[in-house]
Amino acid sequence: MFGPLVIRSFLIAPANRFDLVRNFLKYTADCYVMDLEDGTPESEKERGRQLVVEAVAHLRSGGLRSPLLVRVNPIASSHFDRDIAAVLNLHIDGIVLPKVETADEVGRLVERIESREDFLQPVRIVVGIETALGVQNVVEVCKASDYVSAVYFGAEDFAADMGAIRSDGGEEVLYARSRVVLGARLAGITAIDQAVVEIRDHDRFRRDAEMGRRLGYHGKICVHPAQAMLANEIFSPRPEEVRWAKRLLDAYEAAIQKGIGTIDFEGQMVDGPLLKRAQRIIAQSMGVHG
Amino acid sequence: MFGPLVIRSFLIAPANRFDLVRNFLKYTADCYVMDLEDGTPESEKERGRQLVVEAVAHLRSGGLRSPLLVRVNPIASSHFDRDIAAVLNLHIDGIVLPKVETADEVGRLVERIESREDFLQPVRIVVGIETALGVQNVVEVCKASDYVSAVYFGAEDFAADMGAIRSDGGEEVLYARSRVVLGARLAGITAIDQAVVEIRDHDRFRRDAEMGRRLGYHGKICVHPAQAMLANEIFSPRPEEVRWAKRLLDAYEAAIQKGIGTIDFEGQMVDGPLLKRAQRIIAQSMGVHG
Amino acid sequence: MFGPLVIRSFLIAPANRFDLVRNFLKYTADCYVMDLEDGTPESEKERGRQLVVEAVAHLRSGGLRSPLLVRVNPIASSHFDRDIAAVLNLHIDGIVLPKVETADEVGRLVERIESREDFLQPVRIVVGIETALGVQNVVEVCKASDYVSAVYFGAEDFAADMGAIRSDGGEEVLYARSRVVLGARLAGITAIDQAVVEIRDHDRFRRDAEMGRRLGYHGKICVHPAQAMLANEIFSPRPEEVRWAKRLLDAYEAAIQKGIGTIDFEGQMVDGPLLKRAQRIIAQSMGVHG
Repeated sequence: MFGPLVIRSFLIAPANRFDLVRNFLKYTADCYVMDLEDGTPESEKERGRQLVVEAVAHLRSGGLRSPLLVRVNPIASSHFDRDIAAVLNLHIDGIVLPKVETADEVGRLVERIESREDFLQPVRIVVGIETALGVQNVVEVCKASDYVSAVYFGAEDFAADMGAIRSDGGEEVLYARSRVVLGARLAGITAIDQAVVEIRDHDRFRRDAEMGRRLGYHGKICVHPAQAMLANEIFSPRPEEVRWAKRLLDAYEAAIQKGIGTIDFEGQMVDGPLLKRAQRIIAQSMGVHG
Repeated sequence: MFGPLVIRSFLIAPANRFDLVRNFLKYTADCYVMDLEDGTPESEKERGRQLVVEAVAHLRSGGLRSPLLVRVNPIASSHFDRDIAAVLNLHIDGIVLPKVETADEVGRLVERIESREDFLQPVRIVVGIETALGVQNVVEVCKASDYVSAVYFGAEDFAADMGAIRSDGGEEVLYARSRVVLGARLAGITAIDQAVVEIRDHDRFRRDAEMGRRLGYHGKICVHPAQAMLANEIFSPRPEEVRWAKRLLDAYEAAIQKGIGTIDFEGQMVDGPLLKRAQRIIAQSMGVHG
Repeated sequence: MFGPLVIRSFLIAPANRFDLVRNFLKYTADCYVMDLEDGTPESEKERGRQLVVEAVAHLRSGGLRSPLLVRVNPIASSHFDRDIAAVLNLHIDGIVLPKVETADEVGRLVERIESREDFLQPVRIVVGIETALGVQNVVEVCKASDYVSAVYFGAEDFAADMGAIRSDGGEEVLYARSRVVLGARLAGITAIDQAVVEIRDHDRFRRDAEMGRRLGYHGKICVHPAQAMLANEIFSPRPEEVRWAKRLLDAYEAAIQKGIGTIDFEGQMVDGPLLKRAQRIIAQSMGVHG
């Protein structure tokens, strides 16, 4: 139904903080999210919904063209119905559904989307996997509907649900983080890596983003605009990678001409997999999602 | 059926070693286990069963109030029936079933428990996951019955079953160890982390216990009384954690008053997950299981 | 149907490179593979098939007695039928089926094997798990048929499929690598660890092989003869391990005589698991597969 989404940076701000949301116009994230869930306290939920309506108008009239989404409250919460009613007819690109645990929850959101009377524009779903049960069911959740275009792994919430403690190395979430990116791949959707809540520790963000990229994630949750800039850089091919990929493809082409399929290229045995990686880097460097 | 069990230290001693078991009265573990399985050699199984009867009487009359359990031999072994017959009517708090591989095995033990004529006291089940098949089926095993109150991960036996080799860093069991704690969470039961067999290497025990704690385990198998003391300390909130949690909750309360749901607290972006963690620390510091 | 295969070194060479394949006679790998898949370029597939026929005759007449296998192209490729037709009646020991994703794919290969008119010798299947879907279905794939004697984990292809990036530490494939060895164990087949494509970096090969061994793998894909020599060494018990195992078994035997089942042996608490490991080392040192 939808093409793939390029999301290197998935920038989230509280929906009730118009002072932060309006700044989306100044930043350069791939995807912007107004958060009615954890970012907006209980007493502000209704005000947050009203501000979302105003913010969409403000941002669109201000020229924001990147995907703009709203994170609603979990399907089991008392806020979900009102959140959906408030946002479903806005000019937004998608709904972020947090703490998803079963494919059935996605189905319920799809029903709501399809019951809209007027279709202003297609609405995608981004699901959040951030509980033990969500991790267990991640493959089914990611494949629950064609509306699901991306999944994020919420490490902080997952750790809270598990009674686990987050560390810099992140071994405590490696299993869950690996399962989520695998689930995304099996469903053919975009995989968004965990947040780094240490908002001023850019080295940690960088290390964590590099790890996410190695695991196969396409981008990262960002809780600060500076993180979005870093994520855009880290989840793009590096100049040296592009040069390496070009050299490898040239060497491989020359080898093929001689009937050789496996080559020793700069100390690495190159056949199918490295070739595929080099091709992906070139495609990404030309702005194509891979 | 049962409330949660607080098990920071799960101290095991061979059932045929009355000299060690009687010392349970001197130690301060959260849970004591007399082991008829691997700790008791084949030729001593019958004597071990007799000593368990004497030991329960000795320990109870000596004032032991902490949970006292017996680890029986695996359900497929020739010893299982006699072990159960010997222990089921004693004043014990539970039965530890090792090397569980299927939910059906738990069902067979439950049948035996429910067929008792006199119910001296409720008998819980603690299951051991320590084989490849057990790891594969861990979720079903943990959820097999309401009698199942806790699960332990037996890394040494798992490694032996896999032909794997244990290392200090433990990467070789990270997948299995992560699955077991997830299974425990999905079933809502207590998760007991792997043993450290290097009984005089307290630094290694400490590192390994910290890792287990980060993964979400509630406590640890202890094969030496000194390990139980360490486990009690490590699996309790630290004073500095309690102080951090109090500061965070105060700051959050103040922010809520102003309608702010996401706060920048000491360099971390705080919303739902960190809040939940702070609340758990305060609860644990007051002796409440979380 | 088949006994277990001892595969410490699984040496692969492109099928269209007779200059490399003929050298199998000079090397000492446990298992030799002529590769019609990634190692042979598209334009050379037909020539590769012809060379496989010649190479089998050459190697067998030259006295090669170790298992000799052919890696065919994936079942969904246009080459599969011709590959099978070319190799099925040769004096080979097995077929390596790459990029297997479902048990059904194995079933289709089994049909082809069983439809042969003349059975020169039993033909085993070695399956390759090297995609996201293969990792997801690994247990079913390994158990799909009695013909399946071994499984290898193809980390490079898996990373390419995931859009992941390989690193020295290998955290990005730890989940998949752990699942594959678990699947092998559940099916009771031989587990072959990932390749190291840095063919001149013997330290990296050694580190990576040690990690694979710790995880429970029995051997390793080798893309260079020097790697095969290293793998044979690393996946065999070390002299110091054999000495340790003998000391442990002696100490345990003495303890059993005294009715003691758990012993403190050189600082480690020894019961069932370490005992089992010591017994496996002794068996392996005598050439028995464990």
